[in-house]
Amino acid sequence: MKTWTMHGVGYVRCPFKNVEQIPKGLGAQHEADGVLEVLPQYAAGLADIDGFSHLYVLWVFDRSEGFELVSTPPCDDRPHGIFASRAPGRPNPIGLSVLRLVSREGSRLTVKGVDMLDGTPILDIKPYLSNVPPEELRRGWLTEAEARRRQQSS
Amino acid sequence: MKTWTMHGVGYVRCPFKNVEQIPKGLGAQHEADGVLEVLPQYAAGLADIDGFSHLYVLWVFDRSEGFELVSTPPCDDRPHGIFASRAPGRPNPIGLSVLRLVSREGSRLTVKGVDMLDGTPILDIKPYLSNVPPEELRRGWLTEAEARRRQQSS
Repeated sequence: MKTWTMHGVGYVRCPFKNVEQIPKGLGAQHEADGVLEVLPQYAAGLADIDGFSHLYVLWVFDRSEGFELVSTPPCDDRPHGIFASRAPGRPNPIGLSVLRLVSREGSRLTVKGVDMLDGTPILDIKPYLSNVPPEELRRGWLTEAEARRRQQSS
Repeated sequence: MKTWTMHGVGYVRCPFKNVEQIPKGLGAQHEADGVLEVLPQYAAGLADIDGFSHLYVLWVFDRSEGFELVSTPPCDDRPHGIFASRAPGRPNPIGLSVLRLVSREGSRLTVKGVDMLDGTPILDIKPYLSNVPPEELRRGWLTEAEARRRQQSS
């Protein structure tokens, strides 16, 4: 089978030293500040990034091993497929975050909304360009899990 | 330097046989229908994906070689950094698309909005969960390029 070799173009610096510190589950707010430190040899690729309010950051779940195709996430009591979830144990261990770009100092991007661990390798950064039309957005089992939780707490 | 080896968990089937056929540039509409064919050994990971209206699909620019940190995209006459653009020649050749999930037949997902080539290897699929608050979204050089183009055509 053909494979592709990926490497870090930078690293995340943030307060989260272990996964227990990262807010998880339904309605989790990701407001933490962090810094994306891009390696000097890739810094030229940041030209004009300052104009975008939000970035897609692709990164490696570098402290996760193996994968589970079906598992029960912390925010639900039912199992779901890995491709219908953002769980760490994926066939290719790539994470995706939408972060708000606060400022840039050379090859350091200060961002808001960090949900990864300190030291996480960054694979790619892309500009966030457009939203899905809100009236078309459906959130599957997450909506159902939220409804069940509301029912339980009422 | 530490590296990570990635492999296809499936393949894109769509009408685009070469890059010239893919709509590109400012205001490009991606309405093409396609199919994500997930390999049988990963099909269990699709459980409950049907409930989501939109998916993030991570894929490999498998017909692109090398990278350019700064280049001029087809939709502008000025150069921009690779991390401020969605150009193919990236340090890690990963593409990201937001596709609308139309239907699922077993391990085949029919999707709308395809902007990749037929046969493109899929690395990961994740549910699209939420939009950026529209009043916070800024689109950097793209907004400027659009304004210049409007001025030129008026």
